[in-house]
Amino acid sequence: MYKILNKNISHEKLKNLSESELKLLCKEIRHFLIKTVTKTGGHLASNLGIVELSVAIHKVFKTPMDKIVFDVGHQSYTHKLLTGRFEKFHTLRQKDGISGFPRQAESEHDAFIGGHSGISISAALGIAEANRKNGNPRKTIAVAGDGSFTDGAIYEGLNNAGKSNANLLVILNDNAMSISKNTGAIASYLSGLRISKKYHVAKSDVKNFLEKSKTGEAVSDAVSATKRMVKNTVYYKNSNGNIFENLGFKYYGPIDGHNLDELTKALQQCKRINVPCLIHVKTKKGKGYKPAEHNSGAFHGLQRTVLENAKTESFSQVFGREIAALAEKDERILLVSAAMKYATGSNIFNDQFPERFYDCGIAEGHAVSFSSGLASLPEFQRYLPVFAVYSTFLQRGFDRLLHDCAIENQHIVLAIDRAGVVGEDGETHQGIFDVGFLSLIPNFTIFSPSNALELKVCLRKALYEVEGPVAVRYPRGQAEPGDYVGEWRLIEQDSSKLILTYGRMFQNLKLKWANSNYDLLQLIKIKPLPDEVFEVALNYKEIVFYEEGGERGGIGEAFLLELIRKGWQGRYDVKAVTDFIPAADINHQLSEILGERS
Amino acid sequence: MYKILNKNISHEKLKNLSESELKLLCKEIRHFLIKTVTKTGGHLASNLGIVELSVAIHKVFKTPMDKIVFDVGHQSYTHKLLTGRFEKFHTLRQKDGISGFPRQAESEHDAFIGGHSGISISAALGIAEANRKNGNPRKTIAVAGDGSFTDGAIYEGLNNAGKSNANLLVILNDNAMSISKNTGAIASYLSGLRISKKYHVAKSDVKNFLEKSKTGEAVSDAVSATKRMVKNTVYYKNSNGNIFENLGFKYYGPIDGHNLDELTKALQQCKRINVPCLIHVKTKKGKGYKPAEHNSGAFHGLQRTVLENAKTESFSQVFGREIAALAEKDERILLVSAAMKYATGSNIFNDQFPERFYDCGIAEGHAVSFSSGLASLPEFQRYLPVFAVYSTFLQRGFDRLLHDCAIENQHIVLAIDRAGVVGEDGETHQGIFDVGFLSLIPNFTIFSPSNALELKVCLRKALYEVEGPVAVRYPRGQAEPGDYVGEWRLIEQDSSKLILTYGRMFQNLKLKWANSNYDLLQLIKIKPLPDEVFEVALNYKEIVFYEEGGERGGIGEAFLLELIRKGWQGRYDVKAVTDFIPAADINHQLSEILGERS
Repeated sequence: MYKILNKNISHEKLKNLSESELKLLCKEIRHFLIKTVTKTGGHLASNLGIVELSVAIHKVFKTPMDKIVFDVGHQSYTHKLLTGRFEKFHTLRQKDGISGFPRQAESEHDAFIGGHSGISISAALGIAEANRKNGNPRKTIAVAGDGSFTDGAIYEGLNNAGKSNANLLVILNDNAMSISKNTGAIASYLSGLRISKKYHVAKSDVKNFLEKSKTGEAVSDAVSATKRMVKNTVYYKNSNGNIFENLGFKYYGPIDGHNLDELTKALQQCKRINVPCLIHVKTKKGKGYKPAEHNSGAFHGLQRTVLENAKTESFSQVFGREIAALAEKDERILLVSAAMKYATGSNIFNDQFPERFYDCGIAEGHAVSFSSGLASLPEFQRYLPVFAVYSTFLQRGFDRLLHDCAIENQHIVLAIDRAGVVGEDGETHQGIFDVGFLSLIPNFTIFSPSNALELKVCLRKALYEVEGPVAVRYPRGQAEPGDYVGEWRLIEQDSSKLILTYGRMFQNLKLKWANSNYDLLQLIKIKPLPDEVFEVALNYKEIVFYEEGGERGGIGEAFLLELIRKGWQGRYDVKAVTDFIPAADINHQLSEILGERS
Repeated sequence: MYKILNKNISHEKLKNLSESELKLLCKEIRHFLIKTVTKTGGHLASNLGIVELSVAIHKVFKTPMDKIVFDVGHQSYTHKLLTGRFEKFHTLRQKDGISGFPRQAESEHDAFIGGHSGISISAALGIAEANRKNGNPRKTIAVAGDGSFTDGAIYEGLNNAGKSNANLLVILNDNAMSISKNTGAIASYLSGLRISKKYHVAKSDVKNFLEKSKTGEAVSDAVSATKRMVKNTVYYKNSNGNIFENLGFKYYGPIDGHNLDELTKALQQCKRINVPCLIHVKTKKGKGYKPAEHNSGAFHGLQRTVLENAKTESFSQVFGREIAALAEKDERILLVSAAMKYATGSNIFNDQFPERFYDCGIAEGHAVSFSSGLASLPEFQRYLPVFAVYSTFLQRGFDRLLHDCAIENQHIVLAIDRAGVVGEDGETHQGIFDVGFLSLIPNFTIFSPSNALELKVCLRKALYEVEGPVAVRYPRGQAEPGDYVGEWRLIEQDSSKLILTYGRMFQNLKLKWANSNYDLLQLIKIKPLPDEVFEVALNYKEIVFYEEGGERGGIGEAFLLELIRKGWQGRYDVKAVTDFIPAADINHQLSEILGERS
């Protein structure tokens, strides 16, 4: 079907392709990605944006000796196609299929997982430093979107790398987007760089490179001679340094990230110097696929279920609608997001109250401290900040939650989306740790609703009935309208055995419950635990606690300790998560926790 | 004793002092701090460095209407003296005394706790934004050392603040130090700013300000007229922007931070404009106290015990010496620190192997990802990174540990110092959460030695017997030489009751054990738990599990669940930490956990 992209494609074969063949390859990859990812689900827009960049990197460098660290790892699809995973690509993000992220176990060409934003320069610096110590002259390349440059993590990496002697290349893939449109000062700054600093390659220099590149890999003997020359090319601008130059990087760019020729030349220049460089590349997210070009936010992460007709609202939509409704009656409510406006349903609020919505960029730590600041004033001056965030990303704010919220007992509300298993996004994005890490923190209250009405009630309680920091957590997926009967409910059938659970797991167990001989108790407020629940539980001889989250640090452990303290004797078990959960569909992941599969 | 500094001193009185009286006040404060803090313990050098700055802020601004956020909060001593805490100052960091950090409950003049580095701009932006929404024209001031500027958190704050309309003033207190000497590109950059960009106040401008300042607080009506004027003063340099200007701040400086006159004028300028400004102030850490000026690292945090003769080595020293000894025989061992070279004993290693030591700045997240990078290469190329870090600061790397270490099972060793209660540093620095948050993470192994020999053995095991990420955690304080008998030990006296514990708590309980009728079981490897320990425990009718750490997510909960799964029936309790622990001496804090005090 394709002329070049087929099972024989490899990063090695690619090095012998002509310029026009490379262009055709890019076109074919783009077609293939659109065709496949709209079926399998996955990250389409970001991968369409770096087809040429990925091809150019593999043209100039050679993995696994050279290392590529993607920030974040979900933009590695072209890299995967070029390094032996074309034939398995239709299994992307499926159970036992290839991962949506680089995995060292999957391929020696995958250097680092890069599950969350901002870590690429830090990890790449570690790899580069290990290589330097080993006397290995190979390059380590960090590929990071400008969205990641709103994340303080990148800056820690730049600060440490800029003063090092690491053979490190950072590629800033600047599409002016993270998932939503980028906000903050760095976005304006980069856009200023785009306008004011267009550097061109000098003609003589180009010629020189073209000659060199024909000699293939054998440039190491000419390195020191070339080094001085390269340092003086027009690419590298020394005076009036920009931010990256100020931090010790040699800066090249901006370069058209869809122009293979420009890309290849810039990469070849950087290949010949072994100090920290940064290439600033301009790309278009969703390039080559009109729907994604025009609305790359919507095409950021495609789910297979997108194509199905959703019969009910998602929890995210219920949240978005409800928080907007509450905000209509209460001016103190402010909504904070970390580059997740659409996915968390916060766009509904933003449309209605743009002045009360804050998108902090990919900066969950900042979002927590900022929210705590908003809530820290004396009672009649303070606001009611709600931070809407995915469970997995909130991990990045753990210390801030402990320090900036909890010690002073600031009243901020966390609306934790994707709490529980998330399906095909796999290990890096499961929301299975939030109950654990929030439970460690004194003063935190946690609600875990299982349906739309419970979510609405819990939000109201969190805003108006709780002091101090409070979390309302809810899963990915559709929310049944449902009912609400209180902070816990017992469904009895006169059994001596009890099943305890909370959140979405309740809905699953309720369906199975009719055929079992267990009573079923649903918790909605899971921290602190309501006293009456223990009084009920003490009457049972056998209790099984189901959690859609980690066993360690979970509610099941805490519940048991309290029962035993109260003198209870009986059989007790916890069915919960004990390891990282790889990609599969959500129902499969849930049934594994339920013990229906082994 | 002092002419100006006495119980009547206040931030309001200060506004009426003459220039020479203010200078005398600074001298007296400095004398008082040296006299008091060398007795009470506390942070001396950093506070001596900002005496004039604190006085100038209170001269120009008015708390609690204006807000000051200290980054980190331990540099707030002069502020505390000026806002009603002179008479109680001798109780600094003592049980029931005044806190070493700003606490909102302690004083309305304390705006935000600032327990860990880097959060000041984020929190201050929240406060400033709340004020803006309230129509409150008052200023919010973030005071951050240049050490905090090695922390990515600051950058997230700058990025969000720079594009805002917040009435925010950031004061960069640049002493070229965090706790140890600063490293990284930002340090060179700031030092470049120090050399190349000395801005002076124009004479006419000075005159203008002197006249204005006599009119006291009543400047609000002249604000808009003054604004345009101030924008054009020589302080503010618009073209060839530096990093801060690039991020949207108006930059003033550098200014001599010990010159009250220069400081006051710069602050007055910023008072009149209500957009984000940054004043770059040069100070000397330890100013006015020769021992601290020359070795501010050693005088960073004074402990009352410093003056006692230590009979044994501290755990930090044992670690430092042992890791250096191990490194002599194994070139793969590299040591990573986050601005904690001396306090963790890592200076011993650094002296011997400077090429194998990495100080990453106050950037624990980076340190974890960097270490993971070092460990990520194929077996014969990879290194053995050891990250030496305080328990409390490791909280800042939680997500990185989960993602960058644990998912790919990278073999990095965490040497966790100050694991357990830490005494007078109080809530913000207790090492009581590490067992909890590390236990949540699959693949992690945790050792908790109780004496010097156990620490050495555990380090060897961590390096050579364990796959994947591993932590060795040990407390603040002296390490008895002790013995080692295995990953757990049982001290029997034929009781049917068992006490289980680990870490320093074992040493405390052993002393009391002779008079009790309990057997005593010490765990050293606390995750995963050794199978044989359960076989032993099953024989007891009553078990009490003592932990110098949080009850939630602790080992006591996990141990119980496993016992119950094995069919055990009996009485069980956990004695552990259930709330934040305020300042007191370590023995007091330990005896509270032991239940000896209520």
